[in-house]
This record gives sequence, C-alpha cells and structure tokens, in this order.
Amino acid sequence: MDASPSVSLKNVKEAAARIRGYIVETSLLEVPLLNKELGFRLLVKAENLQLTGSFKVRGAFNPIAQLTGDERNKGVIAISAGNHSQAVAYAASAFGVKSTIVMPQDAPKLKLGNTRRYGAEIITYDRATENREEIGSRIARERGLRMIHPYDDARTIAGQGTCGLEIFEQCKAKGVAPAAILINCSGGGLSAGIALTRELYTGDKPQIYTAEPDTFDEMRQSLATGKAVTNMKPSGSICDALLAMSPGTNTLPILLANQAKGLAASDACVEAAMSLVAEYFKLILEPGGAVSIACACLNRAMFQGKAVVAVASGGNVDPEAYIGMLTRGLKNRSLLFA
Amino acid sequence: MDASPSVSLKNVKEAAARIRGYIVETSLLEVPLLNKELGFRLLVKAENLQLTGSFKVRGAFNPIAQLTGDERNKGVIAISAGNHSQAVAYAASAFGVKSTIVMPQDAPKLKLGNTRRYGAEIITYDRATENREEIGSRIARERGLRMIHPYDDARTIAGQGTCGLEIFEQCKAKGVAPAAILINCSGGGLSAGIALTRELYTGDKPQIYTAEPDTFDEMRQSLATGKAVTNMKPSGSICDALLAMSPGTNTLPILLANQAKGLAASDACVEAAMSLVAEYFKLILEPGGAVSIACACLNRAMFQGKAVVAVASGGNVDPEAYIGMLTRGLKNRSLLFA
Repeated sequence: MDASPSVSLKNVKEAAARIRGYIVETSLLEVPLLNKELGFRLLVKAENLQLTGSFKVRGAFNPIAQLTGDERNKGVIAISAGNHSQAVAYAASAFGVKSTIVMPQDAPKLKLGNTRRYGAEIITYDRATENREEIGSRIARERGLRMIHPYDDARTIAGQGTCGLEIFEQCKAKGVAPAAILINCSGGGLSAGIALTRELYTGDKPQIYTAEPDTFDEMRQSLATGKAVTNMKPSGSICDALLAMSPGTNTLPILLANQAKGLAASDACVEAAMSLVAEYFKLILEPGGAVSIACACLNRAMFQGKAVVAVASGGNVDPEAYIGMLTRGLKNRSLLFA
Repeated sequence: MDASPSVSLKNVKEAAARIRGYIVETSLLEVPLLNKELGFRLLVKAENLQLTGSFKVRGAFNPIAQLTGDERNKGVIAISAGNHSQAVAYAASAFGVKSTIVMPQDAPKLKLGNTRRYGAEIITYDRATENREEIGSRIARERGLRMIHPYDDARTIAGQGTCGLEIFEQCKAKGVAPAAILINCSGGGLSAGIALTRELYTGDKPQIYTAEPDTFDEMRQSLATGKAVTNMKPSGSICDALLAMSPGTNTLPILLANQAKGLAASDACVEAAMSLVAEYFKLILEPGGAVSIACACLNRAMFQGKAVVAVASGGNVDPEAYIGMLTRGLKNRSLLFA
C-alpha cells in the first residue's frame, strides 16, 4: 500500500518553517543511571514541556497559520478530548481567530479549564451516549466554521511530523542512531507525522511503534491486519488522550507504508511508567503521555544494547488525579520489569 | 568591596568550554497562561532536567576535569546534603576517579541511593550532633583525597556560572531582557557563579536575588548587613538542599560586589510553588528547587510587566515525600498570591 499522497516529508519541513516562531523545541532527555538499569538507552522526547503541555500545538498551528482571510473571520472548530482543544484554542488566539471546541464532559478539569482560559467557547458532550463527530459537524455547518481535525488533516499530520524532525536532529547531535521510536497513539496523527521523517535517516531506519492502552489498541490491531479496526468501547482507560475509536483514514496508510508495529500497555503499567518518569526524569506526564515509556520498559528484552526514543506526548493531568496515579504507580513499579 | 579576584567571567567561559561534552543545556521554559495570571513573564531555568537531577554537575565537572594525575589516582571527597554528592560521584565516575562522600544520615533516600549507584563510598553523619566539615577534613587528610567543596571552590563557582551563560544566551534568543534572576541559595555557589555573568548584559543588568527558606536565610541577612551571618540551627526546613550554615567566604564577596539582594519563602509557600510548577510547567522540583519560584510569586507586585528568570535548581525528591508536599501545596496554593 502506498503512503497517502497528500502528506510528505516536504510538507513536514514546510510546517517546521511555518510554525517555528510559535512553538518551542523540546528536550530529548536521558538518565544514565536508568539506561544502565534498563540495558538500553532510553531517550525521552519531552513534549509535555511543549506550549499548552502537549505536542498538539504543532498540528494546530500548521493549519491555523494557513487559514484564508474568510476562514479567519468565521473562526475554527475542533473536537477533542482536551490536548487538541487547548492547542487549537491557543493557536487560534495567537492569530486572533475565534475557536469553538467540542469536548467530552468528563475530560480532565485542567484540560477543560485551560481551553476556556485560552479563550475558546466550549460545547460538552457525553462520551457514552453522544456522537462527537455528529455534534461537531452540525455546529461547523450551522456556523460556517473551519474544522481542525485532531489527527486526520494533512496539515495537522505535517505539523505533528515536526516533532520527528527535532528527534532526527537531536539524535544526530548526540551521535545516536535510534533503533526504534515509540509514539503514543490515538488516531495516529503524531505517529504518522513522525513516520514520514524516517526518510531522513541514512542506513537502518528506526522502527516506528505506536503505543496504546491495551484496552484501546485499535491501531495495533489495524497495523497487524493491514486494515482499519474499530474499537467498540467509547471509554475504559485512564489514558483520556488516547481514546479514538479507529485509526485515521490518512494516518493508517502512512504507518502501514512505513512498516509500523503496534505495542500496548495496561493502565497499571502506565501509572508505573508515570512514577518512573517522575523519579528519574523529573517530569510530570499524563497517562496518555507515558504509554510509550511503559512499552519501552515492557519490551526491554527486544531493545537491549540499542537506543530507543519514547515520545512523552503530554503532561495535562489534574494534579489531584496525578497524586493517586503516582501513588499506585510507585507500588506497581515492578510490573514494568516483570 | 571588590569581587573575589579568584573567579571571573573568563573562568566561567573556560568552564563552559571544558564541561560542554559532559552536561546538557537545560531548557528555559515559560507558560503563557501563567504569565497572564502573574502579570509578569516567568522564565524557569529547568536545572532539575540536568544530569543527576540538579545544576551541581556543572560545578563538579569543572574541578574534576582539572585534577592532576596524582589527584585522579588518589580520588576525591565531598561533603554534601545530596545534590553535590550525586554530581561529584557521577563526574568522578566519568573520569574513572574514586569518590568518597560525606552525607547526612537523614538525606533523602533517593539522594543517598543514587550517590551509591554512581559508585561513591558514602560516609554518613548526624546533622544535629556532628560537624561535617571536621569529618570530611579528617578523612581527606587520612586518605590523601582532594576535597571538592560544594560551593566555595573557585572552580566550582565558575562551573555553576555556566548556568548563567545559558540563561544569557537563551534570553537573547527569545529577545528578552530579564529584570531579575532568582536563584535558590545555600552556600551561594550557583548565585555567585550566575552573578559573574551579569557583565554580559548590555544596558540594565538583571538584579540578582538569592532565594532561601525563611528559617534558613543567612544569605539574605548577610547581603543586608554586608558581612557573613551564621545560621544557628542545623536543620529546620524541608529544603534539605539549602541548609548551609553560612555564606561561602568566596561567594559572599561576589554577590555583594554585584549588589545582590536576598529573598525568602516559608516551607508552606515552597510546597505551593512545587504544586504550581507541577501543574503549569509539568516539572517535578524538590523543595530546595522551588524556593525561587515561590519568591517570584510572593513578590509579583515588584515584578509587574517585567521578565523574571527563576532557576529551578533541582528535582531530587523522594517520590513518597513528593506526594505529601504536592497534596499540601495544592491546598495552600493561595499562600503564593496572598
């Protein structure tokens, strides 16, 4: 299967030039003591330190910077569990554009609150009984708003790919050839964007692994079978950022064309990874930001002696909820090394 | 009073060239939403993301890289509450040098454990009843070890100053002229080192503020009176990294020559700042790493409309203790804005 012709490495590079002044380059961190313990070099791409607390601003700024005058005047709309919400609200406000965001009513308070503080109008829905796509499409139509899709828009995929460009440059500066890149995955925008940057690597190219909650592993199943699998449950993991029902129609072909494979971890392992990252990296990750690190630890036999990049995609977790997750994660740390 | 002739900006620049390959450049982070709320631009220098979890590796690598062959063979010794311990143990191991570290027996488990894991021999003492300088000097003499002082060695001060060089370059890249730099302070090595980099700024130079626990504010008192004041209590703050009894004989003159001023915050405010940084910056700070941020918030009237750099000097806190601090800090957040 060919990669979607609509997004290429060239688009990712153009996106990087376009959004440079609006985002920050996040650190690629490692901890020598932990590397020794793991038996492989774990490089964490700290996208929780990105503006708005997740990688999502990359994929929000790229389409919003390209709006036509008419689109800017009318405003944008987005449907999201919370990280894309904040990113679209923030990017829209930077361009003086009105944003309307459709969010689940049970989204973390921090995500709801910050989206509002960035100036968005929020419309909530019930994850269990309502269809968010229907609600979003209806409002977009009624109000004439431009939809900024959380993962399946070519411009958004190109924007997320800029994270992969940074990983490539940062690995080069460190003299590291990564054997694998593990990426937290919902609809697949970040994974597909980073997959497009494999082309940059000379010699062995890094293996792309998507990382998902094991109760929400539709991308793993889709990559294994070669066709889109839909998850039947509308909720059921603490990883609130990773609950897309199915892979994107544009993201899956890119991942298949790049021979991506799927990994997954339980919620208990995710909490353990959050505690590991707190102790060693001094970073606060939300559950959906730590699955890649859980998967790296769980599959350490496969990575012995290699260099592995794990993208820590976000850190937007309610502090009160974080305390519980950290407490349980510390108790369950051994699950990662079972 | 003249600055100590033994350390200059030139030494800081030489240190930067010497240790470049051994440390990382840490991010200077800011959060637009928080800036808006504070009424000033708060730039956090994330030294908790430095190797070994604190800025201390800067001041450990600079002297250790300059050891004579004989000194390398005999080994080094350090006295420290835990961050300097880890840094010396790590830097020594990088040069294949044996390290002996004198640490308080009530130091955080993480600091004791990591120092051991970096390969150091640890000798513990009782903070309340024993004199650590006496113990350290005796062992150094008996074993012929080179002492790496935690703050008063010229090479260590120059090493810590490299943090100030990065702040200068990062502010320049952002187009920011910082009005103030707030630095967590124990003996004053980091504060003095950064003070030496004020020379780089053209136009108004940033005001240097030391930041201390209010029960352990001997530097604030020393800066106010112009002469070294000694704290009479051997313990009494959660900021275990900031419990030096008096300013260094080399650090105080540098700070006085640079018109530094002292600020302080209560332990309750420090915990509130830790929770603020967790929520907005997604960073885990130890108590002694968050005093600068507490002081920035407490003095926000003074900083309105300005840009303020707060050095977040370390993140080495026991995760179990962190949970308690974060829990209390969330409840006491309003103390920062009283």
